[in-house]
Amino acid sequence: MLVGLGLGPGNPELLTLRAVRLLKEADTVFVPGRIAKDLVAPYRESVVLDFPMTDDEAKIRSCMKENAKKIAPVAEKGLAVFGILGDPNFFSTFSRLCAVIEETHPGIEFRTEPGISSITAFASAAGVPVNEGFTVSDGTISDTKILLKVRKPKEKAASLAGEGYREFVLVERMFFDDMKVYRNAELPEKSDYMSVMYARK
Amino acid sequence: MLVGLGLGPGNPELLTLRAVRLLKEADTVFVPGRIAKDLVAPYRESVVLDFPMTDDEAKIRSCMKENAKKIAPVAEKGLAVFGILGDPNFFSTFSRLCAVIEETHPGIEFRTEPGISSITAFASAAGVPVNEGFTVSDGTISDTKILLKVRKPKEKAASLAGEGYREFVLVERMFFDDMKVYRNAELPEKSDYMSVMYARK
Repeated sequence: MLVGLGLGPGNPELLTLRAVRLLKEADTVFVPGRIAKDLVAPYRESVVLDFPMTDDEAKIRSCMKENAKKIAPVAEKGLAVFGILGDPNFFSTFSRLCAVIEETHPGIEFRTEPGISSITAFASAAGVPVNEGFTVSDGTISDTKILLKVRKPKEKAASLAGEGYREFVLVERMFFDDMKVYRNAELPEKSDYMSVMYARK
Repeated sequence: MLVGLGLGPGNPELLTLRAVRLLKEADTVFVPGRIAKDLVAPYRESVVLDFPMTDDEAKIRSCMKENAKKIAPVAEKGLAVFGILGDPNFFSTFSRLCAVIEETHPGIEFRTEPGISSITAFASAAGVPVNEGFTVSDGTISDTKILLKVRKPKEKAASLAGEGYREFVLVERMFFDDMKVYRNAELPEKSDYMSVMYARK
């Protein structure tokens, strides 16, 4: 099992209790650099992997393969944890790394654990409340929607399909014991006020 | 001092270490309902405040005033913590509550501490990586932008001003000891790769 673990925006106190537990339970903890290594240090030694800051696709791929070679043997036998600043699902190389590992070492299970993302943490840092819809931009085009307070997911998806959206996920009772995840054709007619829906073109 | 404290999406292990510390240090912990009360229970007794699920503006305001009366005396003398599901800055009643407290008890200091928001946590729950810009919608209009990887904040703000944006905040080195927050005319020419910029119409 390989877990992509969110370490939060950089402050040692902003790790979750789960992050601390997984760092202690892991067979090996991998990190992408010094800041993550420092956050992990109170709980564990960690192995720093090389993730080059470059646009050179061949170099990125070759580094990913080297990293896969180090992580896969641990993940095949036990628990490999890859500690990442912020949240492992947003603008992160974790999903890319998993794809490379899957090519060379099929059958390894992947999971992520959330961390406080800088996308939302800035609001506490700056004292800026956000009480309306918003866009997040890193300069790339935006084909992704995150929808809150969707009461009629099936109807909403049908309407978004007309705008070119074709991938839909609904999470109900998130992180509770009775959490449910629905995809595409499985979307229910009605959902809880607290559900979050994802749509992508 | 009144701290709006993010308790995360509902799982007891997704509290931060800071949340646990502040819950223990608080003179009184207030919560908006049973789910938050249960998350707080391992560390502290808490006082449940009444936040009605209604669109009746007069009723909301009268409840806010009642809550202000309970919180203000604690916050004036010591540390009042208000524990909120998710993050206290997103679609939260905390900023509204602060405004009401300020009217009746001026001089009380406010602060928020981030929690894992359901807006980002859904991605771990659903196994959906988000590696491009996205929009977040709760049905309201969206006059807010969160910009990542802005290298030239002053230039970017000038260009957004042309689209009607008029409020700008930049957070550099977020949650590190040397964090800097720049507002409007203070925006620097250049900023760090990891900065987050906020813009609102």
